[in-house]
Amino acid sequence: MASMKVVQLSGGVGGARLARGFAALDDVDLTVVVNVGDDAENHGLAISPDIDTVVYTIAGEEGPYGWGRRGDTFRFNDEVSRFGIDNTFRIGDLDLAAKLFRTIEMRRGIPLSKVTETIVAGFGLGVTVTPVTDDRLRTMVETEIGWLTFQEYFVERRFQDEVRSLRFDGAETALPAPGVVEAIADADTVVIGPSNPPLSIWPILAVPGVREAVTGHGHVTAVSPLVQGRTVKGPAAAVMTSLGLPPGNRGVGEAYAGLIERLVVHETDQTGLGLSAVEVVSTDILLPDLDASRRLAAFLVGG
Amino acid sequence: MASMKVVQLSGGVGGARLARGFAALDDVDLTVVVNVGDDAENHGLAISPDIDTVVYTIAGEEGPYGWGRRGDTFRFNDEVSRFGIDNTFRIGDLDLAAKLFRTIEMRRGIPLSKVTETIVAGFGLGVTVTPVTDDRLRTMVETEIGWLTFQEYFVERRFQDEVRSLRFDGAETALPAPGVVEAIADADTVVIGPSNPPLSIWPILAVPGVREAVTGHGHVTAVSPLVQGRTVKGPAAAVMTSLGLPPGNRGVGEAYAGLIERLVVHETDQTGLGLSAVEVVSTDILLPDLDASRRLAAFLVGG
Repeated sequence: MASMKVVQLSGGVGGARLARGFAALDDVDLTVVVNVGDDAENHGLAISPDIDTVVYTIAGEEGPYGWGRRGDTFRFNDEVSRFGIDNTFRIGDLDLAAKLFRTIEMRRGIPLSKVTETIVAGFGLGVTVTPVTDDRLRTMVETEIGWLTFQEYFVERRFQDEVRSLRFDGAETALPAPGVVEAIADADTVVIGPSNPPLSIWPILAVPGVREAVTGHGHVTAVSPLVQGRTVKGPAAAVMTSLGLPPGNRGVGEAYAGLIERLVVHETDQTGLGLSAVEVVSTDILLPDLDASRRLAAFLVGG
Repeated sequence: MASMKVVQLSGGVGGARLARGFAALDDVDLTVVVNVGDDAENHGLAISPDIDTVVYTIAGEEGPYGWGRRGDTFRFNDEVSRFGIDNTFRIGDLDLAAKLFRTIEMRRGIPLSKVTETIVAGFGLGVTVTPVTDDRLRTMVETEIGWLTFQEYFVERRFQDEVRSLRFDGAETALPAPGVVEAIADADTVVIGPSNPPLSIWPILAVPGVREAVTGHGHVTAVSPLVQGRTVKGPAAAVMTSLGLPPGNRGVGEAYAGLIERLVVHETDQTGLGLSAVEVVSTDILLPDLDASRRLAAFLVGG
């Protein structure tokens, strides 16, 4: 059987866990297009949290809490506080290898997509992982205390603030990274992973040309990040509600209105959502381990 | 007793071991003016080998082989090779804290002297350690295979090449770091540590104003880096010979001609060197441990 071309749009943990499932399928040629709205400069280091989570998770090297590397140590991180550096955003010694490599390469003008390609090759992964854009794109979150960067909202304030609106700084003039639009056009199927729709997927779609490529595809499936109306991880449910979307999977469907043909929800959730033009199907969407990820990935390409 | 102001000019290991002796004396107010000719950019990191060796050694945290930190691990260093980075210039996880901090601070325009001040404070050292200049100064080594940077000559080729001449790129236009000339002028005594005269001390003296300050001082003592005509560590003897200096301590005296009033040689070496205007005295100049360093430092300020 010829391999099936899958493009997945992804944020961090949830999307990464689905991506490891596709990566584990022999007959799938996978391209993961990753959100960069959460990227940041942290003490001079170029941080791309979603890219790292996707790469580490596909490699089976991800840390236990949704960031960093499995079995990492924090010798550097603990030591650097000696010089007055705030090290509460913890970077492990292994994790630092990719982050510092990226920082150095980007400083000498290598685009993020190219750096990511080298990192993916460094882990020996037979997949493509690419930022949606090589240009600067930053998700800004409006709360009652004002506009926050994603890192301020998510890491420093632990997503405690109600989100009034979002803005994707730099998106208007950003170009899709090389191959992104072509990969979507060539894909047999496009999958939107179980990521936070407003915070992880909307910034991807905000890059001119990407939403159009997805809309024009015709075989786009989204996997809900919700189970029983609640988020498996992170603030998706609360953010969607505060942005005025309906609760539960109907909100997911509306967040992707006009984009998707199919929405996959959890087997315990109802499929009758009253969404026009969207087929709602149910299966086990929880992804606690690689077997579950492989099973869901196979369901998505087989269904 | 009022504290005695000592300024020491220093390269790496030998000078650092003498500096830890001065730092251990209660009645000494120490300023170490450090060579930066060996500084380099190594894979995007700002490397100042002599400054780090001096700081780590005074802190009692130096590695066993003349570089890096005691008890360091190499998790980052081993990991980064995954991305095709040549990691033979090994940087430990603890060592990386100072090196990355320096890199980031300098990139945002903080001068090396200010960064060094913060690093010294981070180790809680009650001394001043300063680069001789905040400007770029690079020791270039002419060998039969051409001009090499110091790192190429010393680290990559392990000082195997005969040195034909030296050049200190940037020295002509370099300014002394803030306080360097003043510290020399105010010092009760100026000591040139047991460092490689051409490779570690000449680049310090090459900064306009520094040689003049030392010459004008009147109480300058040098400690020989040689014992029985041989180098305790590194290529000093061979380099001096190939640059046309006489062998042994006479060569050290000539390397510092017009600069020093006193030369301290090892107790097993002869003091009759026929050097005009230089008093030659002998004592134990080997510095295997802190006690030996403290003893030699006390000898230098007491004599």
